[in-house]
Amino acid sequence: MKASVWESKFSSRTERMTSSAIRELLKVAARPEVISFGGGMPAPELFPREEVSAATERVLKNPELANQALQYGTTEGLPALREWIASFMSKDGLEVNPDNVLITSGSQQALDLLGKIFIDENDYIVVENPTYLGALQAWAPYGAEYATVPMDQDGMITDALPHAFAKNPKFIYALSNFQNPTGVSMSLERRQKLVELSTKYQVPIVEDDPYGALCFEAVPTPSLLAIESQYENELKSEPSNVVYLSTFSKILTPGLRLAWVIAPDKVINKMVQAKQGMDLHTTTFAQCVAYEVARTGFLDGHIQKIIECYRRRRDVMLESLEENMPVNKGITWTNPQGGLFLWITMPEHINTTRLLEESLKDNVAFVPGDSFFPLGGGKNTMRLNFSYMPDAKINEGIGRLSQVVKRML
Amino acid sequence: MKASVWESKFSSRTERMTSSAIRELLKVAARPEVISFGGGMPAPELFPREEVSAATERVLKNPELANQALQYGTTEGLPALREWIASFMSKDGLEVNPDNVLITSGSQQALDLLGKIFIDENDYIVVENPTYLGALQAWAPYGAEYATVPMDQDGMITDALPHAFAKNPKFIYALSNFQNPTGVSMSLERRQKLVELSTKYQVPIVEDDPYGALCFEAVPTPSLLAIESQYENELKSEPSNVVYLSTFSKILTPGLRLAWVIAPDKVINKMVQAKQGMDLHTTTFAQCVAYEVARTGFLDGHIQKIIECYRRRRDVMLESLEENMPVNKGITWTNPQGGLFLWITMPEHINTTRLLEESLKDNVAFVPGDSFFPLGGGKNTMRLNFSYMPDAKINEGIGRLSQVVKRML
Repeated sequence: MKASVWESKFSSRTERMTSSAIRELLKVAARPEVISFGGGMPAPELFPREEVSAATERVLKNPELANQALQYGTTEGLPALREWIASFMSKDGLEVNPDNVLITSGSQQALDLLGKIFIDENDYIVVENPTYLGALQAWAPYGAEYATVPMDQDGMITDALPHAFAKNPKFIYALSNFQNPTGVSMSLERRQKLVELSTKYQVPIVEDDPYGALCFEAVPTPSLLAIESQYENELKSEPSNVVYLSTFSKILTPGLRLAWVIAPDKVINKMVQAKQGMDLHTTTFAQCVAYEVARTGFLDGHIQKIIECYRRRRDVMLESLEENMPVNKGITWTNPQGGLFLWITMPEHINTTRLLEESLKDNVAFVPGDSFFPLGGGKNTMRLNFSYMPDAKINEGIGRLSQVVKRML
Repeated sequence: MKASVWESKFSSRTERMTSSAIRELLKVAARPEVISFGGGMPAPELFPREEVSAATERVLKNPELANQALQYGTTEGLPALREWIASFMSKDGLEVNPDNVLITSGSQQALDLLGKIFIDENDYIVVENPTYLGALQAWAPYGAEYATVPMDQDGMITDALPHAFAKNPKFIYALSNFQNPTGVSMSLERRQKLVELSTKYQVPIVEDDPYGALCFEAVPTPSLLAIESQYENELKSEPSNVVYLSTFSKILTPGLRLAWVIAPDKVINKMVQAKQGMDLHTTTFAQCVAYEVARTGFLDGHIQKIIECYRRRRDVMLESLEENMPVNKGITWTNPQGGLFLWITMPEHINTTRLLEESLKDNVAFVPGDSFFPLGGGKNTMRLNFSYMPDAKINEGIGRLSQVVKRML
């Protein structure tokens, strides 16, 4: 194809955009013979096909609901679904007002919206190191810069925050539960400290929580949103310093592209304005179907089923790593208590992109960790997804991967 | 609610965002007693509820299709749907390659994507005057400036283009068929001239064509995309100077939020990169359902049904205007040969925003025209939608509106 006149017209913004290594990898990993620990896909066996089908039929048989599902809707989202979300989120002393809920086309759109309304070129954002690649991709076109905070087994090391605040950041981006990519959760003490420092230094928080409902332990740790609402208890029903994101992708299905933001009035208003220009509104069809599935209470039991499945798969992966990975070679991994991911740190001399090239020859895929580090580094790290592959494949895949590692050590 | 720390953090971009008068109006017009010629909503009676329901059931009963519909998908869109669109678009000597088709979350997202990849602050875009408000909203955050080209009953007056090109614009934005807001189409001669000037001056074209399929005449005029592919016939199968947008919103249902872009490889690639960061991909659920409806050929007959309904409603509106509007007072209106909208120009001293305030008291809504003029003006113009209201309501609404006009003259 010949060069087109368009090529001379690209915005300066496009130079900052890059394709996601993960998305490209998903394409390779889609080959049926590949055992994929890449991507972040839910277990397809658990998709509630029948419930979604029955819900769609109920919606479309009812003339009023059908009109709502098929016609244009409001930018804020379906009122009934916003109410359901507000009630789903009201726990740990938190009371969410449906007016503070905005439905987005996946959490990725919420990240783009936040970039649009908060990030000017060269603005700093405080992020965990490593952090979620999708956020870095959403904010790259806006010219974001990053101040990173190191992590340990209790999550973001909050003592390092005041140093990061020297950059006068727009906000702190934190994945409180079973972080993508490491699988690590913030301890309650760290959460409290983070909220305290956020208020003290007046740097607000974006809490991205796609996996919080998928907790393998008996008692989940309260969200930053809930902690903050108690910390500033005069604001009990009105979230203030925290903007909170979550999604139906991991508790129902990603194909609906439904997520939500909880934010203070003035932030929601600006996000609605921005979203009008971005896609008018999120699909009313999917919103009506999701509400029809959710309103029956179906998700409570469904989430338990997902938790049982993912907990078992995590166990299989951990046991397989224990059994197969070479010992005493400085290979370590995290022990996630929920979510979809586990994180391996290899000895310094192992480059995981090289490792991926080798393991793909044996049809095993994972995501090299370096792209999760906004300022570079992490070349010896890797992210493994344990939700997508059935138990036997996890065993087989970790076995093969361990052989490749042994050859490279 | 107390002022939050967020308020000091908004980007400079947010100052350029405004809420759509139309969206706010839709809220008022949603009251059942209002006869609404506002908005741009399709006739809900024609929504193919049964076909969408049956298609959803077929998709979800088939394990492979269900997985595709409920799981994450590729940013480009469902391959089968892209192929269907390429074949639907291949006419008038045009051959579209599915690789040049990108599925977007409504055409509004395509407009946002174009803003993101092409518009830097203070870049000029050439637009018809008046032009589509949604485009102005999409591009406001990017800091677009506008060079306007006047219109007559044959559409954009192409002789004025060279003058507009003096601003070194990024592209020309043209609504070739049954333009929103005026309902006017470009004549074939003007289309040919536009393509010729675009090539000569190397200013590419964005053709926004949501209504092209809803043509009331026997022989539709070829799109700019088709004309350009013949003009540069060595590029027959590869669109070059034209990026083309269209949508399922007007020929199937808006609630699915499905639209498409046809663009040269390098533009599609950049759009895919940008879309990854914006929403990962458009809902696979809606894409699979739309494909399942479309692949049977159902849309051919369905589009004919829509055309018949809208043609009749346009006739009812035109006849009612003839009958009821005061004569010899300098009130004129367009005679749209397709689409959803008709445009009225009042005498200079009638302010249509004031007129709307009055007509809302009589429960009749429309959209004042001034917001469609990017550089101001048009305070005596108004847009009327004829697709949404049934015949009797159109008659009644135009009758009431005419009474209000008579009082104001």
